[in-house]
Amino acid sequence: MKKKMAVGDKASLSKVFTEEDVIQYSEISTDTNPIHLDESYASSTVFGKRIVHGMLVASMFSALIGVELPGEGSIYLGQSLSFKAPVSIGDQVTASVEIVGIRDDKPIVTLRTICINNEGQVLIEGEAVVKYM
Amino acid sequence: MKKKMAVGDKASLSKVFTEEDVIQYSEISTDTNPIHLDESYASSTVFGKRIVHGMLVASMFSALIGVELPGEGSIYLGQSLSFKAPVSIGDQVTASVEIVGIRDDKPIVTLRTICINNEGQVLIEGEAVVKYM
Repeated sequence: MKKKMAVGDKASLSKVFTEEDVIQYSEISTDTNPIHLDESYASSTVFGKRIVHGMLVASMFSALIGVELPGEGSIYLGQSLSFKAPVSIGDQVTASVEIVGIRDDKPIVTLRTICINNEGQVLIEGEAVVKYM
Repeated sequence: MKKKMAVGDKASLSKVFTEEDVIQYSEISTDTNPIHLDESYASSTVFGKRIVHGMLVASMFSALIGVELPGEGSIYLGQSLSFKAPVSIGDQVTASVEIVGIRDDKPIVTLRTICINNEGQVLIEGEAVVKYM
């Protein structure tokens, strides 16, 4: 039996990205760009300090989709990401996913996906397409 | 001085995703969907075995962009991802990025991004938009 999904269903998750998260993600992904790892290099950039990998922040959408909405059994079909503002190490990020469309013919939903910081500034926005069970 | 970018410039990277990568990524991302972690659960799904998180596989694009093309100093503006086929633990994946567009007014490139397996099957495809230095 398929889960019941409705437009407007929503889930969210908050997380503070630590230095250790960033170092571990650099290792797993092999994205060792010094903007993420080297404080003295980062201080010379437009950001002024180290930033969290955008794709690591975006992993919060994967977590929400895989664990909460639609949750277990979800199959990720697509994700668009627009990186609007940087995330610094130690910043708290709140990610939300909200169902904005449900297909009639197949168990597939479209979700609006957004990350904001504690000031309400949009960090990442986009859409996910997910098959659910 | 800006780097010189040309349409057709390309970089690629191969990687085998291990069980340890998947466990570590589950921890960092908090995406603990059992399809990635629990062999007996995964064997009951359409995939028949554990699969690597799509967003972990997509981190290869972040690595290529941040380290190789455009490389150091890159600022990720956007990424679209279409997940076409699952990646099993132990599969070798080759990710490639190729410049398909360069803006005249700003140092911003569009890259075609694709992951394939050893049989040439497309696993993920999409586009990245990146500001370079």
